[in-house]
Amino acid sequence: MKVDYNKVTSITLDFLISVAGKDNVFTDKDKLLPYSSDETEDLVYQPEVVVRPDSVEKISAILSHCNLNKIPVTTRGAGTGLSGGALPVMGGVVLSLEKLNRIIKIDERNLQATVEPGLINYVFQEEVKKLGLFYPPDPASWGSCSLGGNIAHSSGGPKAVKYGTTRDYVLNLEVVLANGDVIWTGANTLKYSTGYNLTHLMVGSEGTLGIVTKIVFKLIPLPKHDLLMLVPFNSAVKACESVGAVFRNGITPSAMEFMEKDAIDWSAKFSGELNFEIKPQWQALLLIELDGNNMDVLMQDCEKISEIMQLHESDEVLFADSAEQKNALWKIRRKVGEAVKSNSVYKEEDTVVPRAELPELLNGVKEIGKKYGFQSVCYGHAGDGNLHVNIIKGDLSDKTWEEDLPKGITEIFQLCKKLGGTISGEHGIGLVQQKYMPIIFPEHQLNLMRNIKKVFDPNEILNPGKIFGN
Amino acid sequence: MKVDYNKVTSITLDFLISVAGKDNVFTDKDKLLPYSSDETEDLVYQPEVVVRPDSVEKISAILSHCNLNKIPVTTRGAGTGLSGGALPVMGGVVLSLEKLNRIIKIDERNLQATVEPGLINYVFQEEVKKLGLFYPPDPASWGSCSLGGNIAHSSGGPKAVKYGTTRDYVLNLEVVLANGDVIWTGANTLKYSTGYNLTHLMVGSEGTLGIVTKIVFKLIPLPKHDLLMLVPFNSAVKACESVGAVFRNGITPSAMEFMEKDAIDWSAKFSGELNFEIKPQWQALLLIELDGNNMDVLMQDCEKISEIMQLHESDEVLFADSAEQKNALWKIRRKVGEAVKSNSVYKEEDTVVPRAELPELLNGVKEIGKKYGFQSVCYGHAGDGNLHVNIIKGDLSDKTWEEDLPKGITEIFQLCKKLGGTISGEHGIGLVQQKYMPIIFPEHQLNLMRNIKKVFDPNEILNPGKIFGN
Repeated sequence: MKVDYNKVTSITLDFLISVAGKDNVFTDKDKLLPYSSDETEDLVYQPEVVVRPDSVEKISAILSHCNLNKIPVTTRGAGTGLSGGALPVMGGVVLSLEKLNRIIKIDERNLQATVEPGLINYVFQEEVKKLGLFYPPDPASWGSCSLGGNIAHSSGGPKAVKYGTTRDYVLNLEVVLANGDVIWTGANTLKYSTGYNLTHLMVGSEGTLGIVTKIVFKLIPLPKHDLLMLVPFNSAVKACESVGAVFRNGITPSAMEFMEKDAIDWSAKFSGELNFEIKPQWQALLLIELDGNNMDVLMQDCEKISEIMQLHESDEVLFADSAEQKNALWKIRRKVGEAVKSNSVYKEEDTVVPRAELPELLNGVKEIGKKYGFQSVCYGHAGDGNLHVNIIKGDLSDKTWEEDLPKGITEIFQLCKKLGGTISGEHGIGLVQQKYMPIIFPEHQLNLMRNIKKVFDPNEILNPGKIFGN
Repeated sequence: MKVDYNKVTSITLDFLISVAGKDNVFTDKDKLLPYSSDETEDLVYQPEVVVRPDSVEKISAILSHCNLNKIPVTTRGAGTGLSGGALPVMGGVVLSLEKLNRIIKIDERNLQATVEPGLINYVFQEEVKKLGLFYPPDPASWGSCSLGGNIAHSSGGPKAVKYGTTRDYVLNLEVVLANGDVIWTGANTLKYSTGYNLTHLMVGSEGTLGIVTKIVFKLIPLPKHDLLMLVPFNSAVKACESVGAVFRNGITPSAMEFMEKDAIDWSAKFSGELNFEIKPQWQALLLIELDGNNMDVLMQDCEKISEIMQLHESDEVLFADSAEQKNALWKIRRKVGEAVKSNSVYKEEDTVVPRAELPELLNGVKEIGKKYGFQSVCYGHAGDGNLHVNIIKGDLSDKTWEEDLPKGITEIFQLCKKLGGTISGEHGIGLVQQKYMPIIFPEHQLNLMRNIKKVFDPNEILNPGKIFGN
């Protein structure tokens, strides 16, 4: 069903300026540009106006006005999303949360923190670290992504395999609803059984149900030690198989990252960080981190993992023996996405399956690639069964890219479903994945979601055209 | 808004018999009796009919029929709930899941299990243990409660403090909606960002949004060792204060239970298990369990905890040095609820606050008790800030009990809210706590929940009269 939205008029502009101040309302094309795209492919959608309110009261006033006037509002964090969630596809208002970026309180007694959604993930991590505390969720973009954006997609990152995703650290949310009403979704408690869990409904809802204005996060004590190892394999499938074996042996690494050779090759060149030789016979590498408070235990687990790796025909295991080496390896891993992007036009899929099905998924991705003639570079969070499949345009014609690629992606997602998985583990559906939602959900289930949306946002002003269209 | 429900007619009875077979449809008063109450106080509500279907197809047919005919359906697990969630307050059909109690698959490769909701928690725990696996959520009633009921309230238990509640182990749910449609809420994956998280919305929804017919649980490797210690205190508040200090020192016990002296006294007498002397000056005890794979580490943590306890003026720490002693101590803890129940008419509240606010909550509960003249026995999951407050009728007049008690409870819940907490951590709202919901939520937020309910169940046939009335 198509919704008729209204354009932003001078009345709305005046209202936005009266609420947020004229320094925080942009309509000039050059000022709109940075708010017209995110990190998703090369998509650009220009909003009519950008507003940067700095308080919950101002956001409430703006939503109330836009709701009455049926003007689309697309909430934006730091614009690092990979599914087009922050793109204002219906025009209207981009509401940027960049000014709401304070740490309101770090509660050391309760191991909790209250923060604003525009705060950058890494800034928050560093601040709590100073107090011996730990906020584990660490997307590859942690240096630039916002915590509000992390909530929008329940972002993960390497440490999710041991510590869980963003969802697992959100205790309570202050949310402005479409009509301007403000609610707190839950309580600042570790347990909660008090009506429907609106906190968990908000997490992963990609800005379509309300605007998060405050977040209460759970923190944990910072582990004292960590070890990092890099394990090369001549067979990518063997690398994947070794992953499940580690967990079945009772060891939970704090990261268990998989990279195909191309991924590490391209990233090493891109970041200029590589200080070891990549042997030509290597097909894939695992980056495995262990953390904890007892170095002896970590060393024992490390040895055990080495044995498991050798049973799965790994090449010699490399240990990072300085903070510098660790940082270099992590930098290579974190830069894979950017490196692929700099190398070719590409499309990234965020496939996820039960952990032990990873070899079958990887094999399937390669088979489907052969069938349709595309190359893929795969990497990601193997410990979680979460494989980022980067499909490379390279020399493919535009026609093949536009016509055949969606068929190939459809087959990849059908395979995910068959293996008990789904089409996004941590990037969300946003704009670009919504056409694949019917692979996973029957129409009556999509309607259930659409109707939940209407309960929160009857005029459908919040991030319209996302997840399942309007 | 009052809904006009229809009575169960002979047409419906014939239909139920045609679907479930006559051995699984009860209308005789004596056969209805066991389905007319749960473990909540002494409440009794008789259904018109009980049906025990044994397949998702039968449940779908029954719901479809009841939906068309506007007949209330109250889903029942094992009837061990403490908030009246399974009571058929509008009459109609009680749909018991007792026949759906199979383990469908334990997937050792992926550390997952697929089970039916009528399966008893302890039976499941024991089965996965045989394979070296672990399903941690362990409500006090684990020997008799069903996993479906655990999902209805996101039940916790002692191990939640380290391992989380039921919610944290649910990956995917097969659900029959009110109109008979069947959905799978998510995927069998550790990460998920594919539209609204219906899995997390179902968990804790107390049978008001659909009927769970299959559950995919995450499992973890079973820890190899555990240690149990009992720590007496002459000051209950000091006991509470010591709890936060343990976590701030980077130690996460696998249980951190608090019992007032009366609780352990009554329970020891009730269960006949006590084999040590309870000194008259003790006001409270902590039962602390540590688990893990490395005994040396556990011993070190144990020593560290002993030091912390002594800093908080504990009496001498007692260690359980055999499996028998551990079982005896755990039995005493698990039987507190029953012991209190056998001792007096009582009312149990499931208060929860941020962990470090526990001393203030306990003090407040005692102050409010003095003001209104009631005695309370407090115990619960101190590590989670989850305190079960058992208010004892004792010699109070019926008038005081009926008129003043709700005022006292209101003040206790207002205190919970003030401290950042809420009115239920793991027992749910069900029937008996719904009148207190406005303490926590403004009317527009309750309406949001009511409207979510209507999306799933427009005729409001599923567990009507619960959480926020109809």
